[in-house]
Amino acid sequence: MRRTPTGAAVLQPAKTASITTAVLEELAESGYGRLAMEAVARRAGVGKSALYRRWSGKPEMVTAALSELSVPAVPTPDTGTLRGDLRVLVEAVHEWLTHPLIARILPDVSSEAVRNPELADALRRTVGDPRREMARPVFDRAVARGELAVDVDLALDLVGAPLYWRLSVRHVPLTPGYLDDLTDALLRALSRS
Amino acid sequence: MRRTPTGAAVLQPAKTASITTAVLEELAESGYGRLAMEAVARRAGVGKSALYRRWSGKPEMVTAALSELSVPAVPTPDTGTLRGDLRVLVEAVHEWLTHPLIARILPDVSSEAVRNPELADALRRTVGDPRREMARPVFDRAVARGELAVDVDLALDLVGAPLYWRLSVRHVPLTPGYLDDLTDALLRALSRS
Repeated sequence: MRRTPTGAAVLQPAKTASITTAVLEELAESGYGRLAMEAVARRAGVGKSALYRRWSGKPEMVTAALSELSVPAVPTPDTGTLRGDLRVLVEAVHEWLTHPLIARILPDVSSEAVRNPELADALRRTVGDPRREMARPVFDRAVARGELAVDVDLALDLVGAPLYWRLSVRHVPLTPGYLDDLTDALLRALSRS
Repeated sequence: MRRTPTGAAVLQPAKTASITTAVLEELAESGYGRLAMEAVARRAGVGKSALYRRWSGKPEMVTAALSELSVPAVPTPDTGTLRGDLRVLVEAVHEWLTHPLIARILPDVSSEAVRNPELADALRRTVGDPRREMARPVFDRAVARGELAVDVDLALDLVGAPLYWRLSVRHVPLTPGYLDDLTDALLRALSRS
């Protein structure tokens, strides 16, 4: 291990980025269960210590990598109408779930989380909750305008759920106009009439 | 292989039932990837030929077993109102997804289906489509009454999706009143106002 002026606290961002890419590629290829820290280190061209300096273990490493593709992917629209904002959010969920890496990684990791509470917790803390915080202002504004008929927690569930169900569980492609029809249905579901 | 009067076509229903139980228990324990036909045969106390007389292979065997816990679990309510019917359907989705075997098996199998088109096809044909056909009359009646604002395909997605997302992807328990609030939101989403 190379000695740095302030010790383990100094991490090289470029190295972190290349490790993150290696984690995502290994995950997409092997799945969470067969992913080995050694294989990630080898693919990234670093030592295993470079991994353990950054993350406490596999759940933290995997969910940190997944968050890089997930949290910045949530837009923060402010189009002036709830329908406009919903349309942007729904489109972004679609793009996220059809990203070639996310499409392979997310169902696998969330399925592993059924048996692995530490992974479930890291996934929620690092991916799920931050994504919801990104989208929350859309619904807070709708609440402030007196438009929202449901609590924000249920609203956030409804925005993410249908496309995941369709694309990642049913494995059925969208029909033309699906995103528009879904947006209209969500608008009715969430709006006080 | 023992010779029977009409050959391979004669199957013993009690043996099929005990193999199905063995498949589900093995799946919950080992997951689809590690499930071996031998292990199922051993657990069921039958020869491997008993499996291959019934199913062409692992995808067909697994989805047939899964359908036993899934298709009869869909109620066919006719309460007189769309809200009443939706409440029954949502409750049944909740019971299905929190069944100890389904909760472990479904996310795993649908995640495997991302990489395995044969499994995805069998899953859709044996579990997904028959479940949707069971629930369809509720929405056909709403269409006949001029109540439905979306096509039946989208309506069926919306009924299943939110609870799967919440329970099987986010791994977050329901808050009190969640099923009622969800039913109200779905009613608004699906109804022509």
